[in-house]
Amino acid sequence: MVFGNMGDTSGTGVAFSRNPSTGEKGLYGEFLMNAQGEDVVAGIRTPQTIDQLEKTQPDVYAQFVSIVDKLEKHYRDMQDMEFTIEEGKLFMLQTRNGKRTAAAALKIACDLIDEGMISEKEAVSMIDPKQLDALLHPQFDAKKLKAATPIGQGLAASPGAACGKVVFTADDATEWATQKGEKVILVRLETSPEDIEGMHYSEGILTVRGGMTSHAAVVARGMGTCCVSGCSEIVMNEEAKTFTLAGKVFKEGDVISIDGSTGKIYGEAIPTVEATVTGYFGRIMELADKFRALQVRTNADNPTDAKQARLYGAEGIGLCRTEHMFFNPDRIAAMREMIVSKTAAQREKALAKLLPMQQGDFEELYEALEGNPVTIRFLDPPLHEFVPTDEGDIVALAKEMDMDVADLKAVISSLHEFNPMMGHRGCRLAVTYPEIAKMQTQAVIQAALAVSARHPEWNIVPEIMIPLVGEIKELAFVKNVVTETADKCIANSGKCIADSGKALTYKVGTMIEIPRAALTADEIAKEAEFFSFGTNDLTQMTFGFSRDDAGKFLDSYYDNKIYESDPFARLDVTGVGKLVEMASTLGKQTRPDIKLGICGEHGGDPSTIEFCHKIGLTYVSCSPFRVPIARLAAAQANIKNPRN
Amino acid sequence: MVFGNMGDTSGTGVAFSRNPSTGEKGLYGEFLMNAQGEDVVAGIRTPQTIDQLEKTQPDVYAQFVSIVDKLEKHYRDMQDMEFTIEEGKLFMLQTRNGKRTAAAALKIACDLIDEGMISEKEAVSMIDPKQLDALLHPQFDAKKLKAATPIGQGLAASPGAACGKVVFTADDATEWATQKGEKVILVRLETSPEDIEGMHYSEGILTVRGGMTSHAAVVARGMGTCCVSGCSEIVMNEEAKTFTLAGKVFKEGDVISIDGSTGKIYGEAIPTVEATVTGYFGRIMELADKFRALQVRTNADNPTDAKQARLYGAEGIGLCRTEHMFFNPDRIAAMREMIVSKTAAQREKALAKLLPMQQGDFEELYEALEGNPVTIRFLDPPLHEFVPTDEGDIVALAKEMDMDVADLKAVISSLHEFNPMMGHRGCRLAVTYPEIAKMQTQAVIQAALAVSARHPEWNIVPEIMIPLVGEIKELAFVKNVVTETADKCIANSGKCIADSGKALTYKVGTMIEIPRAALTADEIAKEAEFFSFGTNDLTQMTFGFSRDDAGKFLDSYYDNKIYESDPFARLDVTGVGKLVEMASTLGKQTRPDIKLGICGEHGGDPSTIEFCHKIGLTYVSCSPFRVPIARLAAAQANIKNPRN
Repeated sequence: MVFGNMGDTSGTGVAFSRNPSTGEKGLYGEFLMNAQGEDVVAGIRTPQTIDQLEKTQPDVYAQFVSIVDKLEKHYRDMQDMEFTIEEGKLFMLQTRNGKRTAAAALKIACDLIDEGMISEKEAVSMIDPKQLDALLHPQFDAKKLKAATPIGQGLAASPGAACGKVVFTADDATEWATQKGEKVILVRLETSPEDIEGMHYSEGILTVRGGMTSHAAVVARGMGTCCVSGCSEIVMNEEAKTFTLAGKVFKEGDVISIDGSTGKIYGEAIPTVEATVTGYFGRIMELADKFRALQVRTNADNPTDAKQARLYGAEGIGLCRTEHMFFNPDRIAAMREMIVSKTAAQREKALAKLLPMQQGDFEELYEALEGNPVTIRFLDPPLHEFVPTDEGDIVALAKEMDMDVADLKAVISSLHEFNPMMGHRGCRLAVTYPEIAKMQTQAVIQAALAVSARHPEWNIVPEIMIPLVGEIKELAFVKNVVTETADKCIANSGKCIADSGKALTYKVGTMIEIPRAALTADEIAKEAEFFSFGTNDLTQMTFGFSRDDAGKFLDSYYDNKIYESDPFARLDVTGVGKLVEMASTLGKQTRPDIKLGICGEHGGDPSTIEFCHKIGLTYVSCSPFRVPIARLAAAQANIKNPRN
Repeated sequence: MVFGNMGDTSGTGVAFSRNPSTGEKGLYGEFLMNAQGEDVVAGIRTPQTIDQLEKTQPDVYAQFVSIVDKLEKHYRDMQDMEFTIEEGKLFMLQTRNGKRTAAAALKIACDLIDEGMISEKEAVSMIDPKQLDALLHPQFDAKKLKAATPIGQGLAASPGAACGKVVFTADDATEWATQKGEKVILVRLETSPEDIEGMHYSEGILTVRGGMTSHAAVVARGMGTCCVSGCSEIVMNEEAKTFTLAGKVFKEGDVISIDGSTGKIYGEAIPTVEATVTGYFGRIMELADKFRALQVRTNADNPTDAKQARLYGAEGIGLCRTEHMFFNPDRIAAMREMIVSKTAAQREKALAKLLPMQQGDFEELYEALEGNPVTIRFLDPPLHEFVPTDEGDIVALAKEMDMDVADLKAVISSLHEFNPMMGHRGCRLAVTYPEIAKMQTQAVIQAALAVSARHPEWNIVPEIMIPLVGEIKELAFVKNVVTETADKCIANSGKCIADSGKALTYKVGTMIEIPRAALTADEIAKEAEFFSFGTNDLTQMTFGFSRDDAGKFLDSYYDNKIYESDPFARLDVTGVGKLVEMASTLGKQTRPDIKLGICGEHGGDPSTIEFCHKIGLTYVSCSPFRVPIARLAAAQANIKNPRN
């Protein structure tokens, strides 16, 4: 036992060998003279910064500096140390690798390479990929944040910080953002698929109801938009367009700030700063790319997200969901017309209206990707998600479509499903209404032809992905619709092909998201040129619970230590992983060069990425804001288990 | 080419070597003189019975009889033959094994054994098990049926014939049947889980909406009750308690008859005759039992069904669903009280009311089974199935429970689920509310103790089955609740044990109905003493579609030849079967003596039974009315692929 409280030549302190916030080299810490460790921790006396020690005890300081240098060289990492001085004699109590911010971790790793202390591989391996998340979203200006006081607390549902004017409907969000150029925060009781467009135009999303896996939370994370969900303290008045929080009434246009990394809500403006992948971050990313075997793609369905992901290093789009495109106000009408059609001819007429818009969407994506691969998933959700639920909206739609209201209501009610997740969706839509798949194929191929003609230097090879396949004959049926349409499109467009000097080719593949598809992957691979594991749905069906409903019992499961982590965040390797591995093996048996990817939310989770690397997938695909995390995790996986 | 139209010594005819309706030995057929085959088929002239030939052409007849005898001995089966006589010379045109009714098939098989023509194994193998279905339900008196004219047509949803007075609500069905002793036909727009009890008391069920897999159809098939579903010609007036069909208004109490094997509806009384397994049927069943390796159990949750199944040869109960027991009017109140409870103490109070009733249920079952095994599945469906949906019922319940209506509505609405099939149900109920599992365990154990005390000659070993398990720790948690409660019950009941002279033992096992359970069956078998494959849910989750919703697209799948048979009727061996086989193998690895059964509706399907035999299951369990079919199919499977 040594004593730091033996008088004025005694003392105790803690120090880091580098600054744990910035990574700057040099001692960083504090100490108290005539004190024990608990006095430092207790915070009763104000400690001095470590450099003060040089003045009061220069010999001890010099000895300390030399020991720190020795320790760093020994452990080859930044050290976090405790020391005590007893009557002028230095005792080191403890040393360990120090915790640090993401920014510090990057700088320290780079500096340690430059100082010849560690190899590039070691530098890549020493950074926790999850930490990067903090660097990839806008953050509050640190100084301004200090002066602000939170007025409410919700769930930290999607990271990042946002500041903007309060709006109460998705339409207002779109209008204010696009027509007035305002930055808005969308405040809702909860969001629904109809709100997608408005969510896109919002800086941040705040909901009163819903947990970490609510619609708002999941969609916001996918978009990389800041979201605070489930702030039940808010009293909402949707009609008056006001809400009350901490005794204050907020109305439309009032400025608030929210932090999706902490769940805090502020009743004032706090400026934010943008994220970039440059400097040390950029250097570590380059190293990661050097060492990884897995490709990294992104899930994106609009040019903004796609460009953002490319800036973050995405090598292509692994999942473009086409359904979000139909919620746009100028499209939803045609979409609804298609849904309530009674004949294939009526449906085709409505689809013809959607075709040029859809083609436009894809052209923009191909432009944004500059020849890198784009995987387009055909329409997936049940059709009832597109029809209005509100009485007024129904009446308006009936009028617009020249239909009897009762008739329209009957159609809407016929779309009701007991278990929509396991209902009429995915490729089942294409089996019952092949004209939908035809329209989408035309859009994909015509867009590819048009962009190829404009950019003959790009090699655009569209990847058409059929969702929710469970049986080889089902895929064969839809694929037949796709290839017939695509081949006709290509043949009819002699001019485009001549312009680019080469014939357009395309691939048809499938999602593996239904257990039966995984179990019969050897058969499915006969028709599928690629598999993309849709681990969100695959997890739901393998566990037999729906994400929307699991909230009611998952807490009991965590409390009783039945589940240790959220199976929607981290792939369940034992069960779901077994299916993924089985499908990969079976798929390769049939088609050795099959391209295998993952496009569930798990695609951005480091431990899942390690698993994907091990079982030999070609790529992972994740939301734009997780691309750098995936690049680093992929590199670490390959350093740990090098792929031949 | 021979000619039967060469004059009065020529002719043509068809004949069977035995009567295809009854199986009676002896020539059966008809012929026309001076005619060709097409004249017989055309039905313009009335043919003579075959015995008339003996009078007109005795030599030809004698020759024919001798040939028939030769043909039967050669093919060792009843022959269906075509012949022509050209100017007194007999020509045989064709012979083949003849089609026959179920009754004829049984008699012929027995006669052929007795005549030394075939072995017992051949007799068992020559009968199509599915044909037996026709013999296992009440049928219309054939003579009376001939005189009746159908007035409507629905789907043949559950076989059998029924005649009774029309009632329009399940409560009326129960009341008329139990208090007035009336035979009733329940006529509904569609049925719901709340109707279960009334369905039980009905002779037959007729619905306006719903297909072959609607609630009414599935439940009726399980009960062996005749059902005609989806008769959309009916115009229903539920308030007035009348319906209109074929221009006639039927009111409560009017007599109708329905045939669930043909879907026909009659506006009059047609008497029915009961089914028995005796005579030739009984003899074939005895032979089947001699040759089969698979045990056959039944799915039954009341003594009536259990006794019926025992008469049909069931060796135990493979699945007793406990939820139906709670829809009884004297229990639903306590059940609802339990559901809307806000604390565990309130819940326990409500459960205490249910305990003696539940114990009584189980005592009756043990009595009915006379020491044969009974597998009891713990509460499975989502709780919202038990709460009222009708405004009036909600108000009544609130009053009864001294609750605020708005408060009760909030509780009910909080039970709403997006995908109830994948929601808060099965063992998830026991994880969140362990007191439910405790009450059910108490009921099971106390009932077993009580019946064992009354019948020390029976060896009652309760089998407690935990539903919807997907993870070993989940099963371990619930099993722990069960064993703690059971062991306490057994310890506290020294007297009962002393009476029977032996300590009660019990088994705890699980349903394998979630893909993850099958994939991790090696782990699950560490806790489970038996597996029962719940292939209804397993099929839904493996295919990723819900039975209630699949109707919207399955027709397109059949039309496009994507699916060849209904995966809910015949087990999908390629996908779902792969999981079942994998789980069996993994389960045996961990626990070589594990008992393996199947209790989905597939348990009564012959091709599924053959699969179950091949992969080494211990038993199949099916609805009472399919037990003889299962016994025969199991024998055929073992004759084809003998088990070591």
